[in-house]
Amino acid sequence: RDHARAIVDARWFQTSVITLILVNAVLLGVETSPRLMAVHGELLHRIDLCVLGIFVLELGLRIYAHGRAFFRDPWSCFDLAIVAIALLPASGPFSVLRTLRVLRVLRLLSVIPTLRHVVAGLLKALPGMASIALLVGLLLYVSAVMSTKLFRVSAPEHFGDIWTSLFTLFQIMTGDSWGEIAKTVMAEQPMAWIFFVGYILASTFIALNLFIAVAVEALEH
Amino acid sequence: RDHARAIVDARWFQTSVITLILVNAVLLGVETSPRLMAVHGELLHRIDLCVLGIFVLELGLRIYAHGRAFFRDPWSCFDLAIVAIALLPASGPFSVLRTLRVLRVLRLLSVIPTLRHVVAGLLKALPGMASIALLVGLLLYVSAVMSTKLFRVSAPEHFGDIWTSLFTLFQIMTGDSWGEIAKTVMAEQPMAWIFFVGYILASTFIALNLFIAVAVEALEH
Amino acid sequence: RDHARAIVDARWFQTSVITLILVNAVLLGVETSPRLMAVHGELLHRIDLCVLGIFVLELGLRIYAHGRAFFRDPWSCFDLAIVAIALLPASGPFSVLRTLRVLRVLRLLSVIPTLRHVVAGLLKALPGMASIALLVGLLLYVSAVMSTKLFRVSAPEHFGDIWTSLFTLFQIMTGDSWGEIAKTVMAEQPMAWIFFVGYILASTFIALNLFIAVAVEALEH
Amino acid sequence: RDHARAIVDARWFQTSVITLILVNAVLLGVETSPRLMAVHGELLHRIDLCVLGIFVLELGLRIYAHGRAFFRDPWSCFDLAIVAIALLPASGPFSVLRTLRVLRVLRLLSVIPTLRHVVAGLLKALPGMASIALLVGLLLYVSAVMSTKLFRVSAPEHFGDIWTSLFTLFQIMTGDSWGEIAKTVMAEQPMAWIFFVGYILASTFIALNLFIAVAVEALEH
Ligand code: NA
Ligand code: NA
Repeated sequence: RDHARAIVDARWFQTSVITLILVNAVLLGVETSPRLMAVHGELLHRIDLCVLGIFVLELGLRIYAHGRAFFRDPWSCFDLAIVAIALLPASGPFSVLRTLRVLRVLRLLSVIPTLRHVVAGLLKALPGMASIALLVGLLLYVSAVMSTKLFRVSAPEHFGDIWTSLFTLFQIMTGDSWGEIAKTVMAEQPMAWIFFVGYILASTFIALNLFIAVAVEALEH
Repeated sequence: RDHARAIVDARWFQTSVITLILVNAVLLGVETSPRLMAVHGELLHRIDLCVLGIFVLELGLRIYAHGRAFFRDPWSCFDLAIVAIALLPASGPFSVLRTLRVLRVLRLLSVIPTLRHVVAGLLKALPGMASIALLVGLLLYVSAVMSTKLFRVSAPEHFGDIWTSLFTLFQIMTGDSWGEIAKTVMAEQPMAWIFFVGYILASTFIALNLFIAVAVEALEH
Repeated sequence: RDHARAIVDARWFQTSVITLILVNAVLLGVETSPRLMAVHGELLHRIDLCVLGIFVLELGLRIYAHGRAFFRDPWSCFDLAIVAIALLPASGPFSVLRTLRVLRVLRLLSVIPTLRHVVAGLLKALPGMASIALLVGLLLYVSAVMSTKLFRVSAPEHFGDIWTSLFTLFQIMTGDSWGEIAKTVMAEQPMAWIFFVGYILASTFIALNLFIAVAVEALEH
Repeated sequence: RDHARAIVDARWFQTSVITLILVNAVLLGVETSPRLMAVHGELLHRIDLCVLGIFVLELGLRIYAHGRAFFRDPWSCFDLAIVAIALLPASGPFSVLRTLRVLRVLRLLSVIPTLRHVVAGLLKALPGMASIALLVGLLLYVSAVMSTKLFRVSAPEHFGDIWTSLFTLFQIMTGDSWGEIAKTVMAEQPMAWIFFVGYILASTFIALNLFIAVAVEALEH
């Protein structure tokens, strides 16, 4: 067991894993090309199985080396989950799972210490944003119900039902082509500008405050 | 009276109110679907009346419990106003008021302490922005008068009258599709780029300063 | 002279001037409507002359009251310049000057102390931005020369000559519809994405640094 | 040698070099006009050769004056590289090198001390951004592989192969016209909004953190 731990913690072991993830990443990119898949598909599939096999061995070795401590480390669980996804059957209704195999590349996050550090920093910023995120959700929902009721008839392609409205309002929040959407509605309901301008001001204002809240918290630590 | 106050301040009371608001929120979302309204419209309408009735009772209880203090608390007045809107007749010319019923969901802001805190923080940031907001208003108005005079003939769909110009300039301020608008005008008045570039630089510069003013104030507290 | 100064500094005098500017602002808005001009044009023109006359009197009184000190105060010179523009003949080739009459509304900046303060703050931020602005100018110029040479034939409507390229590159810098422009070029020169991505990264990076430079300076004072 | 150094460090020498670069910059702008090139092409070409000759002499003098120290100064190497590019043969397959001659204008960066200072500041901010840039790269690559697999058939013009997907995802990251792209995909795969909203939230969140990391670092120095 101590021997296994020595292997797992060795520099050459971690470098090999990083190399393998990078090779896997390139393979996943190559697999998106139907032309290359037609020629080398068989070979790529075999390499893919090999890489997956090595990942399973590596995880097994790490579980054996660290015992229960393995499952207490969130990064190890992350690695486990990502490899587990690849082992699930991906046929029929689960074919979308095959797409999730690309998440294996994200193992770089857990393997490279600098990235691990950055991601941990990002995650620490999340709780401070929770209440403002709730506020944004509330603004989106209330605006979606209002706009669906008000503009359903004038612009069914943008506000036809509550899901379409939510998408449109998220799009407006990012500032993408809102002028065109507003003009479509205003062609039939000239006063609709009140809703759009109010919504943009409210969402910009909340975004500004979200930003400042995160910045202030970052500066205090 | 003390008994009423004990009820109103009890945890189960507040949790019930939050639950009720959430149920109401879902109902308001369901009401946007004509298909669901055709089938369950009668039922939804009755639940809606029930919820409204409970809100009226809850407010009555709180007014009885807190007496005049109720009207001195801005959040209580906010709750009162939102419920009052729902009691107004919403037929004929006032049918837009029916849309405002969705504002009931905003009662979450006053009921959940964290949100209450965040909104109070946002509102505190407003006075510091007042003079820059006035400056933005001045920029918009002066630019709207100028652009209407200069570009009315070249691009009536964007600068036909002062209201259209104000809308277009607000759109340009948010950075949405300004290139296309400028090109329409420049097709007939090639020097119009001076106006557009100047306006964008001025509004970006003012926005930058608004942002920094709010950030500096936030950091000082 | 002391009497004149007492008048000029009196509260009622400044309130009157502000009121007059606001009246003037509304009139300038009304003048953009051809329909209202057709009916009340004569009346509006007379009021406009009156307001201008009062402004001239007010400036005369202030020059008499403060003597040479008037010309040392930049805000006073600003007021003088704006009124002077309105007195210039605005016929024939100078008809664009008539549009500049709307700048009279900007006298609010010099008359309302809070706005005066905010604008002074904005102007103080300008020198700190000078060298980064120079860098942005250099980026724009170098990119305009390069893109005109490279893409003139592929996309003459965006990169036909150096002025068109400068406009297009400014538009791309603001993030407006750059994808469409890049795709037009890439349809003929597939490697053009290098230029666009590089340009966007460079301008975003410089903008980020401009922003931070201004923020840091603001926080230090 | 001391004499050469005295010349090189003299104010008039540096002012002459700046003037020469500015003249060169204007010439490069003029060269983009086919009309002016047709008339003055010969003359412009000669002036260009002269300027290049003077730059070579200037560099030679500076190398002679500073000896090996010249090659240790990164700014001097920058100057050398830029002049070297202009001396390369620019015919046939290397014709794109001719476009790089415009980089000579960038010598302003090394010659004007203020710009030199600003650029040095910008470069110092780069290492602090490295790990977040790596994260952005990872997000782009993983999303590109996923979106190519998922949306290749639904929207080949946006997600046809991995390069097209990378371009589209970079475009979405800048917020440009993503609504339209998402709607094209969602017309065939209604659940695609999950990918787009998730991607936008992730990239906005990483951008926010990049920004704050740079700001915090700037404030600490
Ligand atoms: Na856009
Ligand atoms: Na945009």
